[in-house]
Amino acid sequence: MTGNMLIAQSGGPSMVINQSLVGAVLAAKASSKIVEIYGALHGIQGILDEAFVDLRAEPEEVLLRVAQTPSSALGSVRRKPTPEDCRAIFAVLARRDIRYFFYIGGNDSAETANIIAEEAGRQGYDLRCFHIPKTIDNDLLCNDHTPGYGSAARFVACAVRGDDLDNRALGGVKIDVIMGRNAGFLTAAAALARQDPDDGPHLLYFPERPFTLDRFVADVAECMNRHGRCVVAVSEGIRGPDGRPIAEAFSTEVDAHGNRQLTTGALGERLAAAIRQRLNVPRVRADTFGFIQRCFVGCVSETDANEARLVGSVAVQAAVGGKYQNGTVTLTRLPGATYQIDYAIAPLPAVARNTRSLPDRYINPEGNNVTGLFLDYARPLVGPLPVTARLNALRGRNA
Amino acid sequence: MTGNMLIAQSGGPSMVINQSLVGAVLAAKASSKIVEIYGALHGIQGILDEAFVDLRAEPEEVLLRVAQTPSSALGSVRRKPTPEDCRAIFAVLARRDIRYFFYIGGNDSAETANIIAEEAGRQGYDLRCFHIPKTIDNDLLCNDHTPGYGSAARFVACAVRGDDLDNRALGGVKIDVIMGRNAGFLTAAAALARQDPDDGPHLLYFPERPFTLDRFVADVAECMNRHGRCVVAVSEGIRGPDGRPIAEAFSTEVDAHGNRQLTTGALGERLAAAIRQRLNVPRVRADTFGFIQRCFVGCVSETDANEARLVGSVAVQAAVGGKYQNGTVTLTRLPGATYQIDYAIAPLPAVARNTRSLPDRYINPEGNNVTGLFLDYARPLVGPLPVTARLNALRGRNA
Repeated sequence: MTGNMLIAQSGGPSMVINQSLVGAVLAAKASSKIVEIYGALHGIQGILDEAFVDLRAEPEEVLLRVAQTPSSALGSVRRKPTPEDCRAIFAVLARRDIRYFFYIGGNDSAETANIIAEEAGRQGYDLRCFHIPKTIDNDLLCNDHTPGYGSAARFVACAVRGDDLDNRALGGVKIDVIMGRNAGFLTAAAALARQDPDDGPHLLYFPERPFTLDRFVADVAECMNRHGRCVVAVSEGIRGPDGRPIAEAFSTEVDAHGNRQLTTGALGERLAAAIRQRLNVPRVRADTFGFIQRCFVGCVSETDANEARLVGSVAVQAAVGGKYQNGTVTLTRLPGATYQIDYAIAPLPAVARNTRSLPDRYINPEGNNVTGLFLDYARPLVGPLPVTARLNALRGRNA
Repeated sequence: MTGNMLIAQSGGPSMVINQSLVGAVLAAKASSKIVEIYGALHGIQGILDEAFVDLRAEPEEVLLRVAQTPSSALGSVRRKPTPEDCRAIFAVLARRDIRYFFYIGGNDSAETANIIAEEAGRQGYDLRCFHIPKTIDNDLLCNDHTPGYGSAARFVACAVRGDDLDNRALGGVKIDVIMGRNAGFLTAAAALARQDPDDGPHLLYFPERPFTLDRFVADVAECMNRHGRCVVAVSEGIRGPDGRPIAEAFSTEVDAHGNRQLTTGALGERLAAAIRQRLNVPRVRADTFGFIQRCFVGCVSETDANEARLVGSVAVQAAVGGKYQNGTVTLTRLPGATYQIDYAIAPLPAVARNTRSLPDRYINPEGNNVTGLFLDYARPLVGPLPVTARLNALRGRNA
């Protein structure tokens, strides 16, 4: 089938989401089945507004620089299409003779792609509709990991390694609050900061395990006894024993997918206040890493960038190949000592509805640290970190 | 004079403070006048405790890796010596035959070095006492800039460039709170993020200009009208018309030098709340960059690293040279088109007591942005930023 192509980006940006955009555009330019290559601005909002740009007209050297640029070059949106949206979208697709549609994003974006694919089926409109995976949370089902995670994880590991060195210099307790509403993958990446056995982060808390202040304070007290200092990595999404996110009490904003906005400094400040009140620690600090985890310029995992580029082109090749009407690209790690990824196509509903959590085997029995299995899993995704070292005289010595 | 050397680090760590440490140690190893090279742990606290390490014993390859490592390898402290401290310090110096003392830090550390130098004079103890400049705030007098600033400024510029791209993708108002208690230099560095005329940060607020919520909200409203979005860089140290830091209301902790701890998420949240209440903006977010501004691993300005190394060796060379009894190393920029720095020695009191602010010529008349002069000043300190680009079709187009 010959026709025009439309591509858009959705959800929270990542450091490599433009690699996927450019991977798809370059693959489309190489295919005889694709005529025009449109980019819609701000996801489905740009389809509704017919706010399109001509991506075929972009010079290759510009595309290659855009690929290296964090955040969504076409703009993004958090919007779930209503039935009226779907009707309006199909009017635009038909008028423009768009036969290939690609939506880059997380599970919410896969859901949107699935809604559009199902509507195309009902209307008998011949459309190839593909989701291209992206999420820093790493929570898509059917995937070993998702593009975007490796670079965000690299930022977290670099930040926490620096922060651990800072805490060694000035002492006390440092709490770092890390993104990840429902999945602890990004918080877990903080553990990659460690080189020596006494390096922080010493404690990690995930949404996957119930969190109580009593247990937290006891853990910190034990760490202070052992190391004379304590660095904590905690997910913004930690939940109390009732299952409700602890940070929710500090936020009221809800997006179109029903997700409550959690990124605020209040959680870290509250945890710090608990330590100050209950333990005799002279210096307690909290940082909330915030949005720069997903868009910082100059902290990309090379593996992540390469994989993000590839999933874009795999999606286009699957779409023009004719074997699949709709689908999403999945990444499977091949067994063996060498890190190697197999790319395949799965049905949209397989990743659209639910998300996955940090598996049990990656969390220690106490629920306050990662396992060696997690480190083995995450290291190739993040790549080697910059060289840092301590004085020989101080290695193995507290503070 | 032949004798032993003692070096220590003080105040807030930086990304290149270990370059200065290693620069001093390597210069000391090259001098026949210096016998033992001791490092005191945690600044003057380590002198009082006689917690010393033997830096001559460290292999050169370890020193070179430590030089690349953020934060203070010897540990740090925020402590101003009392008269009793001084007596105890001199007992240690005399017992160890320490004749060369180097203290790396900001103006508080220069003050400590000066107290020790004056006490040596009173006691008739022959001591060369030198301060080695370090501060991410860039607020030392008698200096074009100080080592540590360029790398922290680079972090801020990379973070804000990414954040501006993120804001383009999702819209609304984004507020970034940046370190700098009394001087706006680090906040001003956010302006280096801009490439295109409509790039953020669109508004910058410094401690050097009175800040009011009314004016802030009006500025943001005007920016939203013009660009349809707004990225704000604001110093943690902004002051109301009464001269009191606005963030002080949210903090009670005070360090030994009388500085109130300002780094908290509360200022950003309060500014965001003001926008939400008074303007009809659907998406308002605030991040407080926090401690990773000074210790992030993998974001160093090459110029800053080289200069930090050099000030360490210049201090040692001045101390063994015999021309100066005490002093601090200063950096002066030579006139001309090519960036070039002259290193000299100034008396300790010249940098110890007061600090400098962002000069008027670097702030626009409205007090909410930098001037081109500032960009010319800061660019060589930070170095070229990683390549980023927008699609040609979108350049010059809002959002």
